[in-house]
Parts: sequence; structure tokens; C-alpha cells
Amino acid sequence: MDEDQVTEAETAEDETDDDYALRGSVIQDILEAVHDGDQPRLIALMEPLHAADIADVLEQIGHDERVALVKLYGREFDGDILSEIDEGIRDEIIAALSPEVLSDAVRELDSDDVVDLIEDLDEPQQEAILDALPEADRVAVEQALSYPEYSAGRLMQRELVMGPEHWTVGDAIDYLRRAEDLPDQFYHMILVNPRLEPVAYCTLGRILSSPRDIALKDITEDSFRVFDVSEEEEQVAYAFNQYHLISAPVVDAAGRLVGVITIDDAVRVLDEEHEEDILRLAGVGESNMSDTAFETMWRRLPWLLVNMFTAILAAVVISQFSVTIANIVALAVLMPIVASMGGNAGTQALTVAVRALATRDLTSANAWRVVRREALVGFLNGLAFASVVGTLSWLWFGWPELGLVIALAMVINLFIAGLAGVIVPLTLDRMGLDPALASGTFVTTVTDVVGFFAFLGLATLVLM
Amino acid sequence: MDEDQVTEAETAEDETDDDYALRGSVIQDILEAVHDGDQPRLIALMEPLHAADIADVLEQIGHDERVALVKLYGREFDGDILSEIDEGIRDEIIAALSPEVLSDAVRELDSDDVVDLIEDLDEPQQEAILDALPEADRVAVEQALSYPEYSAGRLMQRELVMGPEHWTVGDAIDYLRRAEDLPDQFYHMILVNPRLEPVAYCTLGRILSSPRDIALKDITEDSFRVFDVSEEEEQVAYAFNQYHLISAPVVDAAGRLVGVITIDDAVRVLDEEHEEDILRLAGVGESNMSDTAFETMWRRLPWLLVNMFTAILAAVVISQFSVTIANIVALAVLMPIVASMGGNAGTQALTVAVRALATRDLTSANAWRVVRREALVGFLNGLAFASVVGTLSWLWFGWPELGLVIALAMVINLFIAGLAGVIVPLTLDRMGLDPALASGTFVTTVTDVVGFFAFLGLATLVLM
Repeated sequence: MDEDQVTEAETAEDETDDDYALRGSVIQDILEAVHDGDQPRLIALMEPLHAADIADVLEQIGHDERVALVKLYGREFDGDILSEIDEGIRDEIIAALSPEVLSDAVRELDSDDVVDLIEDLDEPQQEAILDALPEADRVAVEQALSYPEYSAGRLMQRELVMGPEHWTVGDAIDYLRRAEDLPDQFYHMILVNPRLEPVAYCTLGRILSSPRDIALKDITEDSFRVFDVSEEEEQVAYAFNQYHLISAPVVDAAGRLVGVITIDDAVRVLDEEHEEDILRLAGVGESNMSDTAFETMWRRLPWLLVNMFTAILAAVVISQFSVTIANIVALAVLMPIVASMGGNAGTQALTVAVRALATRDLTSANAWRVVRREALVGFLNGLAFASVVGTLSWLWFGWPELGLVIALAMVINLFIAGLAGVIVPLTLDRMGLDPALASGTFVTTVTDVVGFFAFLGLATLVLM
Repeated sequence: MDEDQVTEAETAEDETDDDYALRGSVIQDILEAVHDGDQPRLIALMEPLHAADIADVLEQIGHDERVALVKLYGREFDGDILSEIDEGIRDEIIAALSPEVLSDAVRELDSDDVVDLIEDLDEPQQEAILDALPEADRVAVEQALSYPEYSAGRLMQRELVMGPEHWTVGDAIDYLRRAEDLPDQFYHMILVNPRLEPVAYCTLGRILSSPRDIALKDITEDSFRVFDVSEEEEQVAYAFNQYHLISAPVVDAAGRLVGVITIDDAVRVLDEEHEEDILRLAGVGESNMSDTAFETMWRRLPWLLVNMFTAILAAVVISQFSVTIANIVALAVLMPIVASMGGNAGTQALTVAVRALATRDLTSANAWRVVRREALVGFLNGLAFASVVGTLSWLWFGWPELGLVIALAMVINLFIAGLAGVIVPLTLDRMGLDPALASGTFVTTVTDVVGFFAFLGLATLVLM
């Protein structure tokens, strides 16, 4: 996307009155209605909004307004809103709902949505919700909660559509017409053998477009993939994305069909993974726009603390060259350039590597090629910027040797930056750690230390 | 996800022989077969792989191996592989395919996949592919290419399933059973009025589970949303994600149904947007693992150049205080700590803001609240780290006033970092620019300049 297009697009966004962007004026109107305690107006304003938009409204307003809105909205509050709400304010919202509203709201949800809703709540709130569910649903939810967090078992819904493998299209249609309690959304009929193991699936499109006497097993899809309940949700989401899946059966340890994962679950996980990567690269653990300043401060503090130690390490390196700096103050002026360029080049290489590891474009098959490439790129960009910065420094301070020293230091630092930028995340990944989590600090520590050491060390040798 | 779980998950990933992760050993075997010119072995090795995995193999091997593989694979090469292949090497692959193989390959694809395939190719390659298509398909593709890049018109497929609004379930089933050339995947039947305007849709699940005499208009879905051909693809993807859509009709300027967008298209756009955000935050325009070192160097160079100018600006600030530094070398030792902590705090605030703008969690409704929060967080973290770093500096150099100066400078810089971290992306967004694109450089320039100026300025006032 070039910049012109970005500009056009964003301008269009502001101008169009499209029906799927929540406008600020709507939120203002809603807040006014809440402030006036005008329930009919509030309900009228909320009526055209999708549950996801109502959740956004709740996330974007203040705590007191949130509670007032929920109370005024009363019985209109439904389960979909609850499952769209950000984790950060879910407990507040649940606490603000009357027991009857809460109980009606959760009864509407599929089992996977209830699981997603309650898994991070405190014990008493969990109990309140579980108690509101009919016996069968409660058992289903409790069983889902028995699977490890972030597993396919937590992600799947138990509501599914299956039939014996010998059925025909006609059997399937007759079954579906008789069936009560079908899932809200389903995209395949899963075929199972007598041991309840899923063996194939048919798309609803193929079933609908085939004559009644066709056997289902003759119109199955190649895309069929089965997941184990214990599978990591991240792996499931990767497979959905890679193979363009819409839904997939989940089996227990014995291979029996116990649930189904649908594309919306996978998209949610992909989105969360992405958020995690982008925030972790910046040293932020988690973040909700509804967090208070104190919550936010505590979430930012750990990586600032790590950064403080690495900054002190860099200061210790510099202090080794105090005598040199006292003699040549120009070094103090120029040294941040060496460190900053190295940090930037390292961050570029690092971000590319972290992203490529996440999308599995960087694997053992091409790791060595990519390492060599990044080292070469660092070296080449080092040469390019060294010549510019070296010349400028020479002209600035009228001292050719100073230009030579900073140029050499920059080539060294950008070369090391490229290497560290790819080797650090690769190593963390190989060690089973998230490469996004600690790479940034490692890499900028390396480029700071190498940058200051190379520049001041060379200066001490050449200029003193 | 806490760290233990990450470790478990990643370890499991390395150990499991799951059927949806491409293993390095497979790539090695494939390369051997290519090297030996062993076509039957190559075909046998590729047979179990999904087109997306074959595309990954091609992306991860070197240029010469890639060409050799494509040539040896010969007629087995199909259209799905072509549409899974990364843009960066698409032209290489197409050039390596024989005209007959290429022509067979593109004939299998849906119109949106052909559009996606050829929109970035050179004129002669575009021509070659268009010529291979049957007349009707070629017209469809050429029409799609007449819509602006990154629009719904480019994203949609023309193959769709529609019926008149007065149809019953039985009419729909009879039509589908007779229909030839149904799309590979479809999830809804779109109902149109006599002017061919889409008015509603039914899920296939509802059609299948309803008796034949039920009117389709009585079983339509609330989720129905219509997009205009000129809509930005990013907006479409946002709506798919926000409202959990599976497919949606696209209309031309006259409101007539011209195509349909499905969830896989939207997921691809979301993925591209993610990649763009994360890479732009690091100052990398685009990146493919298959890029050469020279391509990569040119893609990294622009932001390094910008960073060079901002680093020189910081150096100019420092140079104003040469006399002070010459007198107190400790300042040169400590000053990177002030800048580094500010840069880090600014990047944290910035990344959170950029992400929240992308997910529309940060809007005009809560912008002011978030700005105040970030300023407060910066100030509080400033106080916390100022006291630690101030005390350490005092002890290190045995000079209480020096500790006081660095503490003050840090409070100022982290406060400014928090403010800049959120105000810069908000302003860029308001101006219609991508907040991810330039924010990082702006913010670190601010924190460098403010950090050096505050620290060295205060030192000059207090310590000299």
C-alpha cells in the first residue's frame, strides 16, 4: 500500500457513514441517555448495534458509566455481549448484572463461549455462572475446563453435527430436519464409524447439491483434519490458517469425536497470538484500553526494569573509557549515533525473524541461509552508513581519523546487529521460549555494548 | 500465557509428529530427489503435502533449487500451489513453468484467486495467464482488475450462489442439485430481488434442516451485511472479524449483486495487516524469507536513513553541552540510561496505541482518557526508576546532586515518552497516515532529544 492509498482509505473511513463502524457520536448519545437515566432511549440507541459493538462501547467508556449503563440496560443485556467483552472488564460487568439477567444471558451461549467466558473469572463468579446453566450444559462446561488452558479441548464446542459413515444424502437431510438443538453455525456433517471416530466430513454445499441417493462417503472433502483435545490452540489456529479450514473435528485420547472447532475460534486465537507478538516485542505483557493507570504501570514495569539493567551495563562499558572521553569530548557527542543505528538495524532483523518464526516461514530448512543473509545485509548497510556518518564526523570535527573510527565502529556494530537480530530469536525458539518475549532486550543490549565498546575502544587505540 | 506454558507448548511442537507441520527432514528429502533428478521420488514425496506446504517448501529453498524443483515436478504442479506462493517468488515460479502447465494450473482457480495471482505480475506474465483462461473467466478477471487495488472488488469471487427472494427450501435444493459450476466453497444462499439486489441470506445449515415448503425468507440470518465493490479491503476484513462473518455479498455502484467475499479472503487480509503493522513498527517495509541480501538491504535502508538523521539531531543536542561533559565525564557515562529508558517507555506506549488503533479499541470516545492514562503511567514509572537510577548514580559517583539531576531528567523523559507514545500515533491516524509507519522514529527522536537535553541541561544548571 503506498501512502496515497493509505490517505485515501483513511479519509474515506472518516467520511463514510458505513454500517459497521461504531461512530463516536453514537457513544456520546448513549452516555447522555445513561446520564439521564433514560432507559427507552438507551434501548433504542443500542438496538441497531451488534453485540460486538456494544462490547466496544462498554470497553471505551469509564468504569462508573459502564456500571450505570449495564444497570440501566437491564434485561436487554444478552449472552453475546458477554462473550464479546474484553477479559479486562468482564468481571466488572458480571458483578454489575443482576443474577436473573446473568443467568438468562449465559443460557443462550454455546459451550465454547461459556468456557471462554468463565475460564479467567474468580471462583465465586464461575460458580454463579455454572449454577445458572442447565445440568447438561454445566457438565459440558466443567469437562471442557478440565482440559489444559490454551488447548483444543478448551477451544472446541461440544455442539456438533455427525452421522454414521454409511448414510446417504437423503439420510442426512432427514436427520437434520428432525434434529432439535442443532448448533447455531455448522459447516460440515462429520462422518463417524461405529467406535465414534471421525473418518471424513462433507460440506453442507455438497450435501445440498447432491441427489438423495448419493452416499455421503462419496462426496467427502480432502481438507478433513482431526485435532486432539490436548493440541495447543496455537497449533490449531496455524493449521486453520495454513489449510484454509472452516471447521474441524476434535477427538479425545481414545480417538472418539468430542467436539468441533470452527473458523471463528481459530481467528480469535490468531488475533490473540498476533497481539501477544506485537506487544511482547515492545516489552508489554498485556494491555486493555480499559485498564487503569496503576494496572498499566505494573504491566510496563518489568521490561523497563530489565532495560534499566542493560542500560546500566552499557554505562559501565562507557565508564571504562572515561579518560578517553575526558580528552576527546567529541566521542560523547558521536557515540549515541553508533548505538542507535545498531539498535535500529538489530530491531529490523529481529522483527522480521520473530514474524517469520510465527508464520513458520523461518525453519531449520532456511535458518542458515537467513543468518548469512542478515549478516551480509548488516555488513552492507554498515558500509553504506559508515561512509556517510564517517564523512560527516570528519567534516564536523575536522579530524579524519575520528571519521575513520566511527565508520569502523558502525560497520562492526551493524554487522553484529544483523547477526544478533536473527540468531537471538532463533536460539530462543530452539530453546522452547517465545522469541518475541526477550529478543528485543537481548539484541539492543548487544548493539549498545558492542557499539560503545567498538567506538570508544577504537578511539582509545587510534586517537589517543 | 505464562512462561511455563510457553515452554511446554513449544517443546511439544518440536516433538510431535503431527500431520500439519512441515518437517525439515521432508524438505531435505525433496532437495535430494531434485538433486538426483528423481521425478517419481519427488512426486511421491510431494503427494501427501497440501498445496500450502508445497508453497512453503518452494519459499524456503534457494533460487536454483526452486527452478529445478518446478521443472522436475512438471505437470503435477497445480493452480492451488500457485495461489499459495509468496508474492516475492511468484514471478520466478511462473517463469519456470512451461506454458501448458501454467495454463492448466490457472484454469483450476476461482476468479478471486486468479486476480490475487496476477495483480502484482509484470504485463507479459499477466498476458500469458489471461490468455490461458477461457473467454468468460478472462472477462471476469479483467473486470475485477478494473476495481481499485485493495478494494472489495479485487477481494471478491464472482462465483456465488443466489436465488430469488420468493423461493422455498425445496426450490433452493432443486436448483442446487441441477446447478453446474457451483463455487468450491459456499456457506450461504443469497436472496435477491428482481433488480438483482441482495436482500438477505440463509445459511446452508438452516436450509438443510428445514422442510421443503418453508420459504427461504423465513429462515434468513441476522448477520447479513452487504459490501460495496469500492470498499477498502481492510474495512471488509475488520467487519468479518468484528461480526464473525463467514461470507458476505458484494454489490456494484447500482446495488446489484456482483460477487461474494468469504472468510478465507478476510483472514488473508487480516494476516497481511498484522504483518504490515509489526514490520512497520520496526521500520521494515516488506519482507520475504526468499528475498536476496540486496533486496533486503534496500528494504531496510530507508528507515535506517531516517534514524541516522534523528541520531545526528541527538548528537547536535549533546554537542551543545560539550563544555559540561568535558568537566564532568560521568554525564557521558550516564546519559544513555536516560535516553534508553525514555525510548523504551515511549515504545511501550506507542505499540499499545498502534495496536489499539488497528483493532479500533482506541477511538475518539476514549482517546482523551488514554492520553491522560499514558501520561500518568509515564510519570509514575518515571518516579519509580528515577529513584533507583538516581540512588545508584549518587552511590557510583559519590555525588548526591548528580543523582538528583539524573532522577529529575528521568521523570521528565518518561512523562514525555508516555505522552508522545500515544499522541504521535493518534495524530498520524487523525491525519490519515498509518500510525505504525512513522511513529517509532518520531517517538524515539523525542525521547532522545528530551532525554539528553533535560539531563545535560539540568547538569549544566545544577552541577556546574
